[in-house]
Amino acid sequence: MSLHELNTFPGVTAQPDAATAQFVFNHTMLRVKDITASLDFYTRVLGFSLVEKRDFPEAEFSLYFLALVDKAQIPSDDAARNVWMKGIPGILELTHNHGTEKDPEFSYHNGNTDPRGFGHICISVPDVHVACARFEELGVDFQKRLTDGRMKSLAFIKDPDGYWVEIIQPTPV
Amino acid sequence: MSLHELNTFPGVTAQPDAATAQFVFNHTMLRVKDITASLDFYTRVLGFSLVEKRDFPEAEFSLYFLALVDKAQIPSDDAARNVWMKGIPGILELTHNHGTEKDPEFSYHNGNTDPRGFGHICISVPDVHVACARFEELGVDFQKRLTDGRMKSLAFIKDPDGYWVEIIQPTPV
Repeated sequence: MSLHELNTFPGVTAQPDAATAQFVFNHTMLRVKDITASLDFYTRVLGFSLVEKRDFPEAEFSLYFLALVDKAQIPSDDAARNVWMKGIPGILELTHNHGTEKDPEFSYHNGNTDPRGFGHICISVPDVHVACARFEELGVDFQKRLTDGRMKSLAFIKDPDGYWVEIIQPTPV
Repeated sequence: MSLHELNTFPGVTAQPDAATAQFVFNHTMLRVKDITASLDFYTRVLGFSLVEKRDFPEAEFSLYFLALVDKAQIPSDDAARNVWMKGIPGILELTHNHGTEKDPEFSYHNGNTDPRGFGHICISVPDVHVACARFEELGVDFQKRLTDGRMKSLAFIKDPDGYWVEIIQPTPV
């Protein structure tokens, strides 16, 4: 679809309000059962860095903010890092309700069975074949391998809670 | 928490694998009931631009990709725009299963009642008070106003499907 058609599609405001000019789609929040397993997955497998942690001891939960950026971009000053990470796109917030990791029966809902809603997050990589070969070596769970189904250019892996993580590359495969 | 403490927190891989160096947290996907209502909300209220649409007529669904960027950044060439939008962070993907908008009983699950999982997306704005005053003028539904609860520095509004959209500002309020 052409940019003109996109800008004039039903429902679309072609010229956004100037009031929104500096708005940033900052983060997506997912609840996770075992924060250690999730931090391992998102930092070791996908390359995120933990850039902020906030504890709410009375309410028994903690928030973990992760960024997928060059480590050199991360401000070392705590106050500067807090402002920085609230002003950029592509932050992942993980909410850990304390103790859920100790309950064998506990699990979160990934949104892809009823009742449905949220579907997935997506990581863009330079080469999907190279990335997926590495995920196989690391023993990552796949929801859909490149070879599964009709869409051979994309894969879905699963995080420790079963949330789907789509893997794509920007250029044609 | 200091950057050193964050880098050495249990589960965290302090130095991500070089293989992940160019990975980008590209998008988050939400299913929506009425795509026209959702496009209106995300473009008019929040300032997103529709940058890609993909139709799957046999499976009766369409995908809509939105970016919260300066319009001048959006490539007009269709192929270039496709590569561009797959390589940047902060894209919102909306999935519309055709016909759901005609069913008065149909609704999606926002993840914040059982079974829980996904929590919210978040838009960072230059000034939360200015932004929330504008949302009030526009008649947007609030889940939590700035004045509600203990956290006076953030608000939650609701999109047409009831998904929570957190509103924060990077600097202290």
